[in-house]
Amino acid sequence: MFRRPNFATRVLAGPSMARFSTTPSLLAHRAIVYTKNGPPSDVITATTYPTLPPPQQGWVNVKLLLAPINPSDVNVVEGVYPSKPSLLSSWTPSGELLKHPVYPAGNEGLARVTAVGGGVDGLKEGDRVVITAQQYGTWASARTVPSQVVMKVPETLSDVGAATVSTNPATAYNMLHSFTDIEDGGWVLQNGANSAVGQAVIQIARQRGWKTINFVRSRPDLDDLKERLYALGADVVLTYDDLADKGLRDRVKEWTGNKPISLMLNCVGGKTIPRTVSLLGHGAYVVSYGAMSKEPMPVSTSSLLFKDVRYHGFWQTGWYKRKSAEDRRALMKQLAELKLEEPEHEIVTLSAERTDEEVSETVKGVIAKMGEGRYGKKVLLSFEDPQD
Amino acid sequence: MFRRPNFATRVLAGPSMARFSTTPSLLAHRAIVYTKNGPPSDVITATTYPTLPPPQQGWVNVKLLLAPINPSDVNVVEGVYPSKPSLLSSWTPSGELLKHPVYPAGNEGLARVTAVGGGVDGLKEGDRVVITAQQYGTWASARTVPSQVVMKVPETLSDVGAATVSTNPATAYNMLHSFTDIEDGGWVLQNGANSAVGQAVIQIARQRGWKTINFVRSRPDLDDLKERLYALGADVVLTYDDLADKGLRDRVKEWTGNKPISLMLNCVGGKTIPRTVSLLGHGAYVVSYGAMSKEPMPVSTSSLLFKDVRYHGFWQTGWYKRKSAEDRRALMKQLAELKLEEPEHEIVTLSAERTDEEVSETVKGVIAKMGEGRYGKKVLLSFEDPQD
Repeated sequence: MFRRPNFATRVLAGPSMARFSTTPSLLAHRAIVYTKNGPPSDVITATTYPTLPPPQQGWVNVKLLLAPINPSDVNVVEGVYPSKPSLLSSWTPSGELLKHPVYPAGNEGLARVTAVGGGVDGLKEGDRVVITAQQYGTWASARTVPSQVVMKVPETLSDVGAATVSTNPATAYNMLHSFTDIEDGGWVLQNGANSAVGQAVIQIARQRGWKTINFVRSRPDLDDLKERLYALGADVVLTYDDLADKGLRDRVKEWTGNKPISLMLNCVGGKTIPRTVSLLGHGAYVVSYGAMSKEPMPVSTSSLLFKDVRYHGFWQTGWYKRKSAEDRRALMKQLAELKLEEPEHEIVTLSAERTDEEVSETVKGVIAKMGEGRYGKKVLLSFEDPQD
Repeated sequence: MFRRPNFATRVLAGPSMARFSTTPSLLAHRAIVYTKNGPPSDVITATTYPTLPPPQQGWVNVKLLLAPINPSDVNVVEGVYPSKPSLLSSWTPSGELLKHPVYPAGNEGLARVTAVGGGVDGLKEGDRVVITAQQYGTWASARTVPSQVVMKVPETLSDVGAATVSTNPATAYNMLHSFTDIEDGGWVLQNGANSAVGQAVIQIARQRGWKTINFVRSRPDLDDLKERLYALGADVVLTYDDLADKGLRDRVKEWTGNKPISLMLNCVGGKTIPRTVSLLGHGAYVVSYGAMSKEPMPVSTSSLLFKDVRYHGFWQTGWYKRKSAEDRRALMKQLAELKLEEPEHEIVTLSAERTDEEVSETVKGVIAKMGEGRYGKKVLLSFEDPQD
């Protein structure tokens, strides 16, 4: 069945469409798109678009297999995140920028190469790849992308592991390796330890021979959570309530054998920071990668002056922007060799039989449930090509 | 006239007394001391003590010429500062630690060498020196000290300049040179710009070819203050009220020719920080050396993640502890070559004719007035030897 492609279809297949799809074509793929920023429940919509033409010189066509919904993806749609969708997505078939662009959603994902354009080295049909450039629209069944934005995935990584490796484990790995040299048997402290990044931190630290003190929120199923983190390799798991305990500093000294803690990883911010920082050693780095409390971080002058604590931030997106393709490949290789456990997850399949409206509602529903904190696990989208 | 030396006199002449003063001696010197921490008005007292015996091997006797009252000196007396008085001051004549020690107050100061012990190189009677080790008790008319804690002062420095060089200008110099390379014509932003450190920052930056944006509190004599800072070499002087102006960012871009500001120096903290930080460039350092607002510094996550702003602290006392005598001499040479203006100051002479009680009351009165913010200038103490 042929339908007239809607506005969005003009951009989802990339600039290579220009030479091929001037007439209506088979509506064979589906993606989540938006035309303006706002709450996802208001602005996102599923849309179908034509079969991809063969990729042009230097490009590849890919079929998306799994794409996670990360909190930052929602922030990008809302427009409260400094990352904007790739300019690419605003090109018309004739190569000009759209005045009212259509943005495809989704940043991270695993895909399989379905066609390789001329002049592309090191990639062939059937290769499993991840998207490493930012905001290329991974909540889709198929896309055409420049070959340099995808990276082949080592076979040791499972589909779910690969689809989720380039944001959270990459963040964990870089924070542990970029700020201070942690000595053998040295200690790292983190809050929000049950986050996807936190769980990667525990596993990477364990494999590197470093030890971790992990803070989580108190909750009904605390014992289960502690058990899970200990099973991943955590050395100590505490709640923020434990910070009120005046004996905590002495217990930390006992655990660490009085070794100063030289690195703290923070995704919470807010009022627990000063007490947590008081557990660190002289010259320690506090590296922030999030602020789940939605409060700024109160930094005490005494920690800065008398303890020489350094407060830095880390943003994996910025890292990808700064680094070369070679650096990105080296990181992927390191992460694959670490053999991290798959995050706890749920795969939401957006099946071929469903209409665009039904797919829209499903994705909006998942995002709403995430916003209420009702998922304790990573959600991955799996788009089937729609039936026409 | 001979009097029996009181308790305090046993320590103020240092361990060299052991071999000389087992009998009462001429009460020839005076110092401000305290035996326990607390508000200066409660705990400090002036005391007289005997003529110093000749210095022992490796030590020198000095006559103090000028000693500033820095806010941190008051904090040390209060016991709320991590610096404690030198252990030296707690030695008895027989070399043992006192159970209830007497602490001499004052950290910084200019002195003249009056006697040199054996084995001391590079110092002779009459040399002008500053005390560069911490908490050696400079609010005094004379002390005996190990030769390595004093440093000869270049002739280009005036008495007032030398007496105040080792804390505030040293802080300014090190902050400007230790965190990031500022390019020729590059910009530095600071708050509390009328502080002694802030005035040194303006002058050093000007002499290095760097430009400064300076924030001060709004006040009745704002125009006079601005004029003084411009005369020192400030490029822009603003008040914190100017931060509310939405056009400020554009004005900053105009002033700097869109050069990113790579260094901010902070001695205020509190609620003006986020707006000030928003004026900085990517990867800028915010270096704190004080917190006049007495509030912690609210650090926004977006500044850490998306702007890669790094928040560090600087403490000149820690620098002196870490560095070698050679490094300290190199710093002094640099500062002398910069020919900074003397800070605005008032010299309080504690004359020979006055009693210990009168001297105590004068010093307490000065500290109280400083605490109320009624001095707009640096106060220096000049102790005369008491008349007996």
